[in-house]
Amino acid sequence: MARSGGRGTRTGRPRTRMGTEERRRQLLRIGAELFAERPFDDVWIEEVAERAGVSRGLLYHYFPTKRQFYAAVVRHEGERLLRMTEPDPATPVGRQVQQGLEAYLRYAEEHARGLRAFHRASAAGDREIHDIHEQLLAEQERRIVTVLDAQAAAGLIDGPAPAALRLAVHGWLAFVTAAVLDWLERGEPSRAEVREVCTRALLGALAGARGD
Amino acid sequence: MARSGGRGTRTGRPRTRMGTEERRRQLLRIGAELFAERPFDDVWIEEVAERAGVSRGLLYHYFPTKRQFYAAVVRHEGERLLRMTEPDPATPVGRQVQQGLEAYLRYAEEHARGLRAFHRASAAGDREIHDIHEQLLAEQERRIVTVLDAQAAAGLIDGPAPAALRLAVHGWLAFVTAAVLDWLERGEPSRAEVREVCTRALLGALAGARGD
Repeated sequence: MARSGGRGTRTGRPRTRMGTEERRRQLLRIGAELFAERPFDDVWIEEVAERAGVSRGLLYHYFPTKRQFYAAVVRHEGERLLRMTEPDPATPVGRQVQQGLEAYLRYAEEHARGLRAFHRASAAGDREIHDIHEQLLAEQERRIVTVLDAQAAAGLIDGPAPAALRLAVHGWLAFVTAAVLDWLERGEPSRAEVREVCTRALLGALAGARGD
Repeated sequence: MARSGGRGTRTGRPRTRMGTEERRRQLLRIGAELFAERPFDDVWIEEVAERAGVSRGLLYHYFPTKRQFYAAVVRHEGERLLRMTEPDPATPVGRQVQQGLEAYLRYAEEHARGLRAFHRASAAGDREIHDIHEQLLAEQERRIVTVLDAQAAAGLIDGPAPAALRLAVHGWLAFVTAAVLDWLERGEPSRAEVREVCTRALLGALAGARGD
């Protein structure tokens, strides 16, 4: 995904012919870089075109407005995040959480800008963008609640009160988001410590939901 | 706090003379009501003046722009929140968390609109307003970390690794914010369950930070 150094990168990039899908991915990647570091109003569509080595006209062909471009970046990064943390139903629930977190933290390290661009959407002050972000988080929440409910139904874990369980998962996703963005900014503690803190927060919250 | 029905309320309210402080508090309360339910752009200064039963001129005397008015509402509600959850150093740390949460949840029930107006600032898309919100949350975080550090220094609790401890508290504040806003919207689970879920999430996160 990441292209490093040499010819054919960023600003100095000569105009090259790319397939439609490849071009679209390139534009979304550049969008993630720019929207990660600056608020919406401070990103200029001209800069995107320049970095991509394409005309503004071609960029508008893919994304008719800057808002639609940003919406596509947020959706693209959010969907990748969902894909990266897809639970494996064959794995015990404790392992699923550990593996999901490990995948998420690796994703966060490798795609820090994509993650920041995605979460900046919550502060965009634009309802449509805000809603795309909310929907993707809600999907993540539903997925985790479904896993826990299935385990409870199978008698594999105690059945927590549904409303308290959902609240625990909802709060926990906010916990992980805040913790990971902070970790990316500060570079500490270690990834293993972040994973431990997040895992134990979830286990604690779920125990609280069950009234243990 | 809430005025219901009859003469002298809201729009029909006759203009009355109030002291400067009383008037300021009234305007901030009306601001919290309006900014809680609508994004910044959908709140009209004329409506604030009308609800307060004052002229626009008088309102501008207190708050020269709508932005300054919103900033004052966010600061006012955030400071109230800090005051309501002030830790009592004489109390053991476990009790402090329980008491702080209980105070916070009662505040949330009684001042739901103030709390929503405060947290809407994080999605305001306005850097100054966003920063006021961040600073008040950072103050809350510092306060909790200080309490935990003091306990660790006194040997009352095990000393967690500082970076992991701070991360745990940072994530947990996001947890509590998300959980409480969700709880206000849905009206479930019970307050006691919310308190339990939040308390256990913090204890879990701190245990994770210590590597227990």
